[in-house]
Amino acid sequence: MIFEKVLGTINKYNLIEDGDKIVLGLSGGPDSVCLLHILYRLKEKMNIEVYAAHLNHQIRGLEAQKDALYISQICEDLGITSFVKAINVPEYCKEQGVSLEEGARTLRYEMFEEIKQKTKSNKIAIGHNRNDQAETVLMRIMRGTGLQGLRGIEYIRDNKIIRPILDIERSEIEAYCEKYELNPRIDKTNLESIYTRNKIRLELIPYMKDNFNPNVIESIVRMTNSLKSDSDYIDLEAERSFKEVSTLKEDSVEISLPKYSNLHNAIKVRILRSAIKHIIGDTNFVDQKHIEDIIELECESKLNKMLNLPRGIFAYRRKNIIILTTKEIVSEEIDFCYNIPSNGFIKIKELNLVLETQKMSIDRYKSIKLDKTSKGFDFDKIKGGIVVRSRKQGDKIKLAGGSKKVKDLFIDLKIPREDRCKVPVITDDEGILCVGDYKTSENYKIDSETKEVLKISFKKL
Amino acid sequence: MIFEKVLGTINKYNLIEDGDKIVLGLSGGPDSVCLLHILYRLKEKMNIEVYAAHLNHQIRGLEAQKDALYISQICEDLGITSFVKAINVPEYCKEQGVSLEEGARTLRYEMFEEIKQKTKSNKIAIGHNRNDQAETVLMRIMRGTGLQGLRGIEYIRDNKIIRPILDIERSEIEAYCEKYELNPRIDKTNLESIYTRNKIRLELIPYMKDNFNPNVIESIVRMTNSLKSDSDYIDLEAERSFKEVSTLKEDSVEISLPKYSNLHNAIKVRILRSAIKHIIGDTNFVDQKHIEDIIELECESKLNKMLNLPRGIFAYRRKNIIILTTKEIVSEEIDFCYNIPSNGFIKIKELNLVLETQKMSIDRYKSIKLDKTSKGFDFDKIKGGIVVRSRKQGDKIKLAGGSKKVKDLFIDLKIPREDRCKVPVITDDEGILCVGDYKTSENYKIDSETKEVLKISFKKL
Repeated sequence: MIFEKVLGTINKYNLIEDGDKIVLGLSGGPDSVCLLHILYRLKEKMNIEVYAAHLNHQIRGLEAQKDALYISQICEDLGITSFVKAINVPEYCKEQGVSLEEGARTLRYEMFEEIKQKTKSNKIAIGHNRNDQAETVLMRIMRGTGLQGLRGIEYIRDNKIIRPILDIERSEIEAYCEKYELNPRIDKTNLESIYTRNKIRLELIPYMKDNFNPNVIESIVRMTNSLKSDSDYIDLEAERSFKEVSTLKEDSVEISLPKYSNLHNAIKVRILRSAIKHIIGDTNFVDQKHIEDIIELECESKLNKMLNLPRGIFAYRRKNIIILTTKEIVSEEIDFCYNIPSNGFIKIKELNLVLETQKMSIDRYKSIKLDKTSKGFDFDKIKGGIVVRSRKQGDKIKLAGGSKKVKDLFIDLKIPREDRCKVPVITDDEGILCVGDYKTSENYKIDSETKEVLKISFKKL
Repeated sequence: MIFEKVLGTINKYNLIEDGDKIVLGLSGGPDSVCLLHILYRLKEKMNIEVYAAHLNHQIRGLEAQKDALYISQICEDLGITSFVKAINVPEYCKEQGVSLEEGARTLRYEMFEEIKQKTKSNKIAIGHNRNDQAETVLMRIMRGTGLQGLRGIEYIRDNKIIRPILDIERSEIEAYCEKYELNPRIDKTNLESIYTRNKIRLELIPYMKDNFNPNVIESIVRMTNSLKSDSDYIDLEAERSFKEVSTLKEDSVEISLPKYSNLHNAIKVRILRSAIKHIIGDTNFVDQKHIEDIIELECESKLNKMLNLPRGIFAYRRKNIIILTTKEIVSEEIDFCYNIPSNGFIKIKELNLVLETQKMSIDRYKSIKLDKTSKGFDFDKIKGGIVVRSRKQGDKIKLAGGSKKVKDLFIDLKIPREDRCKVPVITDDEGILCVGDYKTSENYKIDSETKEVLKISFKKL
């Protein structure tokens, strides 16, 4: 019965093909031992070769040696070549600064890969079961997840990692082991997040079964399988759209805005993750919040804005594209310089800004109401011609506290790097009168001696 | 703080617009009372009108009267018109044969609708909160659900039912009620699936908070909101595809196969549900299994097959379409009639079948090996010309047990109605020699007297 069910799973998801060579991860527990026996029975039927790989984590001392002995014995009985490797997992984890769970996982898969290459195999079989599936999904739901996480454990990944007993319940597996007298070992230090996993298995699921639904595992697994189909569909569509709207470069992705903007949010989210994956190789560090921030970049108001994301990724909003990259892009500098008349106006087309100038007596100046965009300067303190231009390296302005680098001023004012060249700097022959309408120099201030005033107004077009 | 948060929700999902008239479902518990107070504060700001509707379920006796009194009082204090209606809910549920939960829900929404019309309102506001959301989703996960169910409670449905405090936690709501001294009533018989809901609220979620994630509610709600976007996307795409591949009639939907077959399973599932919804009005009775069965109909091998679904729905597989309908379709009758030579062959093009006939001596007949598709008849018992034709009403055949209606024979043989016209019937001038290769008449049997045999073979092309 179980054997037929596993065959059904293998066929449904095309897990095993004629001629496959399979490395089985064999812990010695019921799941992997049951899978060993089933693969053994399939050997002739499906014309496959099977190797067993066991990692002695060196955590369980004498018990671990007994595990290894058991593995050798059962594999010999079934005529299956086994590989046992001992690694000091706790030491490795300490060195790498990772959790036991994470370290053991890494080493296990490294070993599988090694033996796969050594035996010229093409697949790795893992003994995850139906309960593991439900437990994994429940754990993710409690910790927070999305559609991708709700897919749960995959039957097959990269056409390499296969999980043939993922549809079989733990109790069925135990019955199978008993029927065939396989006497699996019981690993009391189940490394996979011991605490959480066991809590879910021994407390949470039994509680749900008793109080809400005796078939809760079935329900969760069915949900997961139905979500797999939905998730596959969106991922496929998103991949298609990603190719359509993106230009991939070595360490950057350019997303063409007009096409991208019309897409559904569900697709945008996935395009952005794919872009980041292309640049950095994974997206685990990316929060929903980061993605939302990048999505907001498409608003017209974010033109020329830049976002700092983790892992040194920048997101730039340009005219018709969003650029995700690990390289900082210095914006095309806006460079301008215009002479200013004492009375009249000058248009700075680079900024869509008009400067209006007016020379007047101090009395008249005092009688008019100034708005925030107008500044007054002592006309007699101005030496030579007045000029409005973009900032230059080395620019300094005299403030009340003393001379200050304009660059430092921009930093204090939190003006983004890419916006700094858009701040008009007004100078005479000797120095800076003002930096935009942010700061005015002490050197040209109106005082009790002032007779004539140059009034300058900044007007957006 | 809560007030601002609710405003945020209202704006984000566009729940309330200037000039709206809103009927609030007011139980008297903390959620609805908090919402009452918030809507009261919004009245001038958003230029809305608010009415309160309270259903006295007549379950709680004196307590229910106190509830009604409280409602009148607080609404009077806030200057909001309230409507209180008493209905004997238990009696109604008994009459209708529905659960208290279901009955109360139906009556509550009926009353909201009634008051909405009476007051010429356009919206109904319900006081569901963030905890309700997490609890609902958890309940559905345990009972079994799909992407649609994981959306949880909607912020707005049909631009009519709105839930402005769905982002607010229960504890915040209680604090709000305390701050404004609203003294909400505590309904001890919370009708909404008393047992399950309270178990989740009082046991399951606290257990998850203690053992897995203190922010489990936040995690579940965030998951739900992200799945809403995914679900919206697939639903939109499925709706578009549904329109493309379907022809809607009054009580049937025809799905054009060539286009439909190329679609992703996630889309097919939704198209089929939309089709059933068009025919019957809802799809709650449809299991995943039914949908899978309909999906399988597209296989070539299911040509002309029919499926019986619940609620009297039939699914028919025809050449280039699948038809979902409440009407039984009698297949286009295949009607044919050919004379058969004594020696030779005749092609029945309607069935893609060839009949081969051979006249031979009994000795020769006995010497050849017969396969299952060949029949032998006593040539001398045949009267007049032989004919192969489709069945006719009233056809009878002489079997060992006596004369039998061919129709009854088909029923015994479990041949589907739509396949019956495809069984060739062979007759002479007086009666039926055989019904396909299923049954042979007693009247033409070879016996000890037989001298010559007519051998007839059925060969599929």
